[in-house]
Amino acid sequence: MSPIQFAIIDSTLREGEQFCKANFSSDDKVEIARELDAFGVEYIEVTSPCASPQSFRDCQHLAQLGLQSKLLTHIRCHLEDAKKALDTGVNGINLFFGTSSLLREFGHGKNIDQIVAMATEVITFIHQQSPLIELRFSTEDSFRSSFSDLLRVYLAIDRLGIITRFGIADTVGVATPNQVFNLVQTLRQCTDTDIEFHGHNDTGCAIANSYAALEAGATHIDTTVLGIGERNGITPLAGLISRLYTLDPEQLARKYRLHQLLPLHQLVAARVGISIPMDHYIIGEAAFTHKAGVHTQAILNNPKTYEAIDPGDFGLKRSFLINHKLTGKHAIA
Amino acid sequence: MSPIQFAIIDSTLREGEQFCKANFSSDDKVEIARELDAFGVEYIEVTSPCASPQSFRDCQHLAQLGLQSKLLTHIRCHLEDAKKALDTGVNGINLFFGTSSLLREFGHGKNIDQIVAMATEVITFIHQQSPLIELRFSTEDSFRSSFSDLLRVYLAIDRLGIITRFGIADTVGVATPNQVFNLVQTLRQCTDTDIEFHGHNDTGCAIANSYAALEAGATHIDTTVLGIGERNGITPLAGLISRLYTLDPEQLARKYRLHQLLPLHQLVAARVGISIPMDHYIIGEAAFTHKAGVHTQAILNNPKTYEAIDPGDFGLKRSFLINHKLTGKHAIA
Ligand SMILES: O=C(O)CCC(=O)C(=O)O
Ligand SMILES: O=C(O)CCC(=O)C(=O)O
Ligand SMILES: [Cu+2]
Ligand SMILES: [Cu+2]
Repeated sequence: MSPIQFAIIDSTLREGEQFCKANFSSDDKVEIARELDAFGVEYIEVTSPCASPQSFRDCQHLAQLGLQSKLLTHIRCHLEDAKKALDTGVNGINLFFGTSSLLREFGHGKNIDQIVAMATEVITFIHQQSPLIELRFSTEDSFRSSFSDLLRVYLAIDRLGIITRFGIADTVGVATPNQVFNLVQTLRQCTDTDIEFHGHNDTGCAIANSYAALEAGATHIDTTVLGIGERNGITPLAGLISRLYTLDPEQLARKYRLHQLLPLHQLVAARVGISIPMDHYIIGEAAFTHKAGVHTQAILNNPKTYEAIDPGDFGLKRSFLINHKLTGKHAIA
Repeated sequence: MSPIQFAIIDSTLREGEQFCKANFSSDDKVEIARELDAFGVEYIEVTSPCASPQSFRDCQHLAQLGLQSKLLTHIRCHLEDAKKALDTGVNGINLFFGTSSLLREFGHGKNIDQIVAMATEVITFIHQQSPLIELRFSTEDSFRSSFSDLLRVYLAIDRLGIITRFGIADTVGVATPNQVFNLVQTLRQCTDTDIEFHGHNDTGCAIANSYAALEAGATHIDTTVLGIGERNGITPLAGLISRLYTLDPEQLARKYRLHQLLPLHQLVAARVGISIPMDHYIIGEAAFTHKAGVHTQAILNNPKTYEAIDPGDFGLKRSFLINHKLTGKHAIA
C-alpha cells in the first residue's frame, strides 16, 4: 500500500464539532480550514448547512476561500438537505443512511427498500442539479448491518452510475481490523468506485482499522485533529500519519507538509479549549521523550534504536530525562 | 478467541515508571498494586530490583503483600540481576534481550550466539536456584529483528525446557496487526509455551496489535493504566478491556471486577499527577457523552443504537449534551 494512492478527508469541522467540548465560531472554522489546507489534507468535511442558518453561511464562506483542499459537506438523504447543500457551492456532498437493524428500528425507522428509494431520489436529484459535484454515499453503522443488507444497498446505488465514492462507517467503534479488511475487500471486488472509511475509536482500533481499510483497497480515510468527535472520537490525524510514516516516510513527506502538523494541532486544541494530550501521536510532549537509562544511552549512539519516527521530519526535537531513578550505571530497562 | 484463555500482565509499576511524568513512591506502589489486584489483573510487573536499593525493597515488599495477582519483575539477562531478583521473592521473572540489529550494534553489542549463550546461562541459573519460579524470555524489538534470528533464539531457549512463557515486544511501536498475527502464529506453531505480547503505541496500533496477538494464539498481554510508558506508552488497560468487552461482555465481567476500573485509573492519574484524558477508553469523560441530535434521540429509544459499551457494566452513566447548535428539530448528524 503506497500512501500516494489515498486521500485524507479531515472532518474536524464536522465530526469534530460533535465532540462534547467543541463549539467552533465562524472565525475558528476559517482558521482551522486554512491550517488543514496548509498541512495538505485533500478534503475538509464541514457540518451540514441544515444545522443552523449560521452553519449554512459558514459552509458557503469556506467553499469560497479558494483552498487547495476540496470542501465537502455531510447531509442526510433528504431532498431539503440536498437543496441547501447545493446552494453552498461545496465541491462534494457526503450522504449517509443508517443500515443497521438498530438504526432502522430505533433511529430513522426505514427498511432497506425505503433506504434505497430515498437515497436514489436524493442522489439523482443532486446529479441533475450539479452533474460534476463529487457524491459519496455511506452506510452508517456498517459493521452492525447485515452483509447482505449492505451489499443490496451498495449495489443498487452503484447501478445509478452517479456516485463518486462509497463510505463505510464504524459508527460505534466496534470493528476489528480483520472485519474492516473483509468488508472493504468485498466491496472492492463488487465495484470500481472509490471507498472511504470512517472509524470511531471506542475500542481503540480506529487507526489500525483505517490502515486495514487501505490494505484492502480503500482510497479515502476520515480523520479529525486530536481524534475529536462523538464520544471518544475517530481516527486522529496525527495517529494516521504516524502509522503511515513508519511504512514509507519519504512518500508521506512528499504528500503532506509535516512541519505544519504541530501548529495545526495547537490551533485546534486552543479553539476547543483543551490541551494536547501528552501521549498524543508525534506532537504529544511525551512522544519523543526517553527515560530508561538503556534507552537514552542507545539513542545517543543511534536514535533509531528506540525511535521509529524521526522527530526532525516534523520539525520537532527529542528529549531525555536524566537524573531519575531509572538512569545510571545499572540502568535496567 | 475467548477472553477466558488469556491473562493480563499489568506493567504500570515497570513500563509505567518509564513514563516521563511517573515517579512512584514506595507507598504509591503498594496502593497501585492493591487496586490492580482489586480489578483482577492476573499479573503485576514491577521495576527491576537492580534499579536502586529502594527498588529492591519495594519489590520485596510488594511480593509479601499476599495479593491474588502474581508478582513479576523485569530484568536483563545478567547473573547479578537474576540473583537480586531471586532474593525478592517474586512469583516470576521476565527476562529480555534485544535482538534487532540496531540494538545488537548500538545497544548491548552482542551477536545472536552470544545472546543465546547469555540467556541460557541466566535461565539455567535461575531454574537451579528456584525450580518453580515462572520464567519468561522476551526478544526486545522483535519486529525489527530478522525472522530467522528470532526463531534461532526462541528455539534454542525452548529446548532448555525451562521457560514458562515467551515474550514478543514491539519496542518502538511499528508493528501492524498482520505482522503481529503472523509472528505470534509462527511462534505458536513452533512451541506449546505460552506467548506474551508487549506493544508500544507510537503508531496507534497497540490495542489492535494486542488483539491480533490473542487471535493468533498469544496467552498474555502487557498493559499499563492509561497506557503510560516510554515515549507515548503501551496498550492501555482500559483500551484492551473495551476491545475485548464488545466481543464478549459476559465473559469479561466474570473475569475482572469492571466497577474497579475507574477507581484504579483515578488513583494512577493522581499518583502520576495527570488528569484522565477526556477521550480515554470507557473511563474518559467523553466516552459516554452524546451530542448530535440524531444520536441523542435514538439513544433515548435504545442506547445500543449509538453505544457499543454499556456504561452501567462499569458503574458509569451516559450523558447528553443538549441546547447546542447540533441538536433540535433539524438535527443532522
Ligand atoms: O457519513 C459517514 O460515513 C459517517 C457518519 C458518522 O459520523 C458515523 O457514522 O460515525
Ligand atoms: O520485556 C519485554 O517484553 C518488553 C521490554 C520493553 O519494555 C520493550 O521492549 O518495550
Ligand atoms: Cu462518526
Ligand atoms: Cu516497553
